[in-house]
Amino acid sequence: MKEETRPYTLPLPTIRRYPIYLRAIKTKIAGGELTVSSAVLAEELGLDPVLTRKDLAMAGIPGKPRCGYPARELCEAMNRALGWDSATDAALVGVGMLGRALLGYSGFEEQNLNIAAAFDANPETYGRTFHGVKVRPMDELTGLTKRLKLSLAILTVPATGAQKCADELVAAGIKGILNFAPIQLTVPEGVTVQNVDIAQSLAVLSHTIARG
Amino acid sequence: MKEETRPYTLPLPTIRRYPIYLRAIKTKIAGGELTVSSAVLAEELGLDPVLTRKDLAMAGIPGKPRCGYPARELCEAMNRALGWDSATDAALVGVGMLGRALLGYSGFEEQNLNIAAAFDANPETYGRTFHGVKVRPMDELTGLTKRLKLSLAILTVPATGAQKCADELVAAGIKGILNFAPIQLTVPEGVTVQNVDIAQSLAVLSHTIARG
Repeated sequence: MKEETRPYTLPLPTIRRYPIYLRAIKTKIAGGELTVSSAVLAEELGLDPVLTRKDLAMAGIPGKPRCGYPARELCEAMNRALGWDSATDAALVGVGMLGRALLGYSGFEEQNLNIAAAFDANPETYGRTFHGVKVRPMDELTGLTKRLKLSLAILTVPATGAQKCADELVAAGIKGILNFAPIQLTVPEGVTVQNVDIAQSLAVLSHTIARG
Repeated sequence: MKEETRPYTLPLPTIRRYPIYLRAIKTKIAGGELTVSSAVLAEELGLDPVLTRKDLAMAGIPGKPRCGYPARELCEAMNRALGWDSATDAALVGVGMLGRALLGYSGFEEQNLNIAAAFDANPETYGRTFHGVKVRPMDELTGLTKRLKLSLAILTVPATGAQKCADELVAAGIKGILNFAPIQLTVPEGVTVQNVDIAQSLAVLSHTIARG
């Protein structure tokens, strides 16, 4: 049945562009537009129009030659492709400054991501609540992750403890880790890690500026 | 003269991998190792050994056939290539939760990045100090950025105000923007934007998990 609504796996670069399209299309919908053309979208976003046409076609709904795509249906189809059409519960591990910022990050709601539990190793944080989420001690991580059947975790611990946390998360059934720790995590097959690496982005900038 | 120490522009993917190599090599140095081999490094990081050999060679210092590279010299050469060998002063715009987290982010020090000034549009934050940096009103942005000759800015404002901030920064002489706002910024030629987009990483994860 799943195969019916999610017919195939999209290429990774397409998946990475979907959130960008979604934002642009939502702005158009908010402005009263009912249809969206791939050519206009590509120009606005500075993308290759051929690429954008292919990306949008992969959402699997029919566009019309002149008017383009019905905007709302296209959003829904993209959300479906991203798995953002149904709510996902996630664990957040590491409630330092970055962890707290992410607990209040409004973008997660938009993506139907709900941080269902937060964990930290520092006893001073136990029982404290940030943006409605209570911090729990690390030794509750395995039990609660299993009980809530969480599949996604956000890792915001320092580099030194990150691999150990990742191992615990994987053992508890986590299938995807959004990793903010500046370290390459080792995970078994079937588990996906996405690194949000500030150092890498900064490397590109400072290299470019140093040459400017 | 600049051309002598920074002989050429490295390919972007190489630049993005340098911070990862640097972390691994620093761990080795801390553990007492004096040399580092590209083959060992590639295996540890799960990278193609041919790729890693080329990446390291581009740092421009000679390795020895059996022992590999002298670890410290390799780090220094990579830092030089990244422009991390001399301090860079940056402006941070938007002192909300994420901005505050970044003001306390220890990774910036390692990269010789110093946040010299922070700005926010909310009068309640004016004069408050976070991790030693005082928050200033937005109307001081242009003057101070010019006076301090800042070339890099970290943008942590909501999506709605981001383009306007970017325009102001560019007009004040900023050449590189580390953008955390979930929006595609439009900047003139000669200015580089690096997006740290949490939504994009999350898209890959939830798409993969939804199919699992």
